[in-house]
Amino acid sequence: MADAPKANPVRNKRISNGANAVVGQSGGPTAVINASLVGVIEEVNKHSEIEDLYGAVHAVAGIVKEDFIDLKKLSADKLEEVAGSPCSALGSSRDKPDNEYCARIFEVFKKRDIRYFFYIGGNDSASTVHIINSMADEVGYDLRAFHIPKTIDNDLLVTDHCPGYGTAAKFEACALMGDDLDNRALPGIKIDVIMGRHAGFLTAATALGRQRDDDGPHLTYFPERPVSMDKFLSDVEGVYRKLGRCVVAVSEGICDADGVVWAEKLAKERETDAHGNIQLSGSSSLADFLAGQVRGELKVKRVRADTFGYLQRSFVGVRSEVDSDEARRCGREAVKFAMEADSGSVAIKRIGHGADYAIELFLTELSSVAEKTKPMPLEFINAGGDGVTEAFIEYAMPLTGGLPKTYYLGNEPKV
Amino acid sequence: MADAPKANPVRNKRISNGANAVVGQSGGPTAVINASLVGVIEEVNKHSEIEDLYGAVHAVAGIVKEDFIDLKKLSADKLEEVAGSPCSALGSSRDKPDNEYCARIFEVFKKRDIRYFFYIGGNDSASTVHIINSMADEVGYDLRAFHIPKTIDNDLLVTDHCPGYGTAAKFEACALMGDDLDNRALPGIKIDVIMGRHAGFLTAATALGRQRDDDGPHLTYFPERPVSMDKFLSDVEGVYRKLGRCVVAVSEGICDADGVVWAEKLAKERETDAHGNIQLSGSSSLADFLAGQVRGELKVKRVRADTFGYLQRSFVGVRSEVDSDEARRCGREAVKFAMEADSGSVAIKRIGHGADYAIELFLTELSSVAEKTKPMPLEFINAGGDGVTEAFIEYAMPLTGGLPKTYYLGNEPKV
Repeated sequence: MADAPKANPVRNKRISNGANAVVGQSGGPTAVINASLVGVIEEVNKHSEIEDLYGAVHAVAGIVKEDFIDLKKLSADKLEEVAGSPCSALGSSRDKPDNEYCARIFEVFKKRDIRYFFYIGGNDSASTVHIINSMADEVGYDLRAFHIPKTIDNDLLVTDHCPGYGTAAKFEACALMGDDLDNRALPGIKIDVIMGRHAGFLTAATALGRQRDDDGPHLTYFPERPVSMDKFLSDVEGVYRKLGRCVVAVSEGICDADGVVWAEKLAKERETDAHGNIQLSGSSSLADFLAGQVRGELKVKRVRADTFGYLQRSFVGVRSEVDSDEARRCGREAVKFAMEADSGSVAIKRIGHGADYAIELFLTELSSVAEKTKPMPLEFINAGGDGVTEAFIEYAMPLTGGLPKTYYLGNEPKV
Repeated sequence: MADAPKANPVRNKRISNGANAVVGQSGGPTAVINASLVGVIEEVNKHSEIEDLYGAVHAVAGIVKEDFIDLKKLSADKLEEVAGSPCSALGSSRDKPDNEYCARIFEVFKKRDIRYFFYIGGNDSASTVHIINSMADEVGYDLRAFHIPKTIDNDLLVTDHCPGYGTAAKFEACALMGDDLDNRALPGIKIDVIMGRHAGFLTAATALGRQRDDDGPHLTYFPERPVSMDKFLSDVEGVYRKLGRCVVAVSEGICDADGVVWAEKLAKERETDAHGNIQLSGSSSLADFLAGQVRGELKVKRVRADTFGYLQRSFVGVRSEVDSDEARRCGREAVKFAMEADSGSVAIKRIGHGADYAIELFLTELSSVAEKTKPMPLEFINAGGDGVTEAFIEYAMPLTGGLPKTYYLGNEPKV
């Protein structure tokens, strides 16, 4: 990450004091995206250069409709409460502005003298900021445009990790800790399908809560490493024969040995199914398909499968304090950067490891984050392609903060 | 509950000092079943009448195999840690002992001079205790047999509520609070399938976190009140037209107007499907089926469905302190009852309401709890059969303890 492209802190765009700013939250919500929002608000409140701060309700959709709320009038107490509340307090949108859409955005920007644009989101949101920023340059509209990273998938380029990931990783760890204890209590084979179409970071996080040698997940599969049905079944059988049980975490984006995503194969199969009065969502059908294969091929009686779904990004009551603090810092820093630079995406650099974990923030070019996604580094996946490495644990553990301890007594000495 | 049958505190069975006790955990794990276990241990530790306390690993299966650990040697610190850890620390079993099985249990009881039997579980577990107790009477083996209630479904008879339910209810409330915020951020129709084949208590708990007038779940359906597909679609459409979004919580046990459980209908349909290479678990297919119906009939673009699955009973990190305390108290009290009575099931009576919420414990006959289940009282379901009443909120809120607050800014005054 040391050689990541840094945005040039030039001030080509002249903005008079008293101009206005807008902030929006885009894409899928996370547990800490409101912490970033509050970071923006509290830092803007310190800068007299900025007159009004508009909160765009439902992101760019709210900008074109001028659906704005006044974020400067929120009290400090209210700000703390909003920062602690999960999901996008301003609402979100998946709109991807085209030229006409951007033209309408500029009309609103001009009408309201909006010269600062802060947008919290993933790579699509970075792309939106990049497009709007480029168009502003083209038409000679002086605008400072900043992307603030968030995604539970942790798949943005340049940054060491993404705000939102730490809490989602903690959710996965807590979920698998419980699911593994459940599987100890009533042994069998359990398959859990985890979010992450292109990157395995969330699936890898299911391993973070392991405390005993025989704790699950015993097998984990990622989009980055294809797995054939033969290998999958043989792996599961191996663990089951050894432990009498097996807990498997599977990314929704895992693909077959031919590189085709399993969920897409299943969807295609179903399209050609004339029966077809039952429509399946891709991911829960993956869980059911895998469970069916295990049940059929391995002749194991107790096979269960869950798809964790939207709980992974929205569950109230689980939060990584590190993640929350960093998300807030990213929001604050975006505003500070806006006083010194013209545009960019806020990125995290890790400057301390393990017990000395620490980060600093820097600005990278919007183009380096826009649209692209980052797969999980292969050094985080073990040689067999069915588990994580110590390098992953060292990378991810500081991001979740402490995890609860669990106890199992069944292995105590017998009397 | 005032007229619930109370067990007669007679001491027909003479047990010499120095006899031994066994405790087991049966059925599906809960977040607080270990608190009940620790309650038993710490109370046994106070009674010199009991010499050894065996922990049966995997419940009755562990008894017949003499797979026992010595629970008296666990330190006070370790006990606190175990009490705070979810799922069955001794492992569980779904075995339902028949005559032969019981005969083997008695062999072990005699061999080890086990005269106290504590069994933590649901109605099937109460039934196991009842059977073993009756057989002990028949063969003239002096045994004191006690059932300690646990179930997330909250469907045991006699008791006001069951240890395990409060934490599971909190999980449902937290899940729906987040899911509703997620749906606000990216509006559409969301369907969540909740555990509970015969009782709607868990599905009803999804409503406990509502804080704003338009918070979801907007519709909730229970096994106790049949719902036709026509009504379901018409209800969903009504909410969607009004709010532009709709969050629905559906019990896995909901049935059609003809009284047949929807999930069973779907399973039957699929059996006759010649394609059949994809095996579905009942509940995730219900979610997909309902989403498919909504998508097809209401022509709404964004329709999502989740089945919460095993996370509902095993997730680590969510806990109701009230629930945990009561579970521990039930364990302690079972041992105290065993000093005064021959057999029974520990039950909870509510003696204070609202801010004055308080309980006391009493002993009821094993036969009054064994096998049967309790549906949710109809007074907890609204007239339309699609939501809960204030009576339910008053019943359930003290059991979860405080719930986190959430914030949405999109409805603030516009500027």
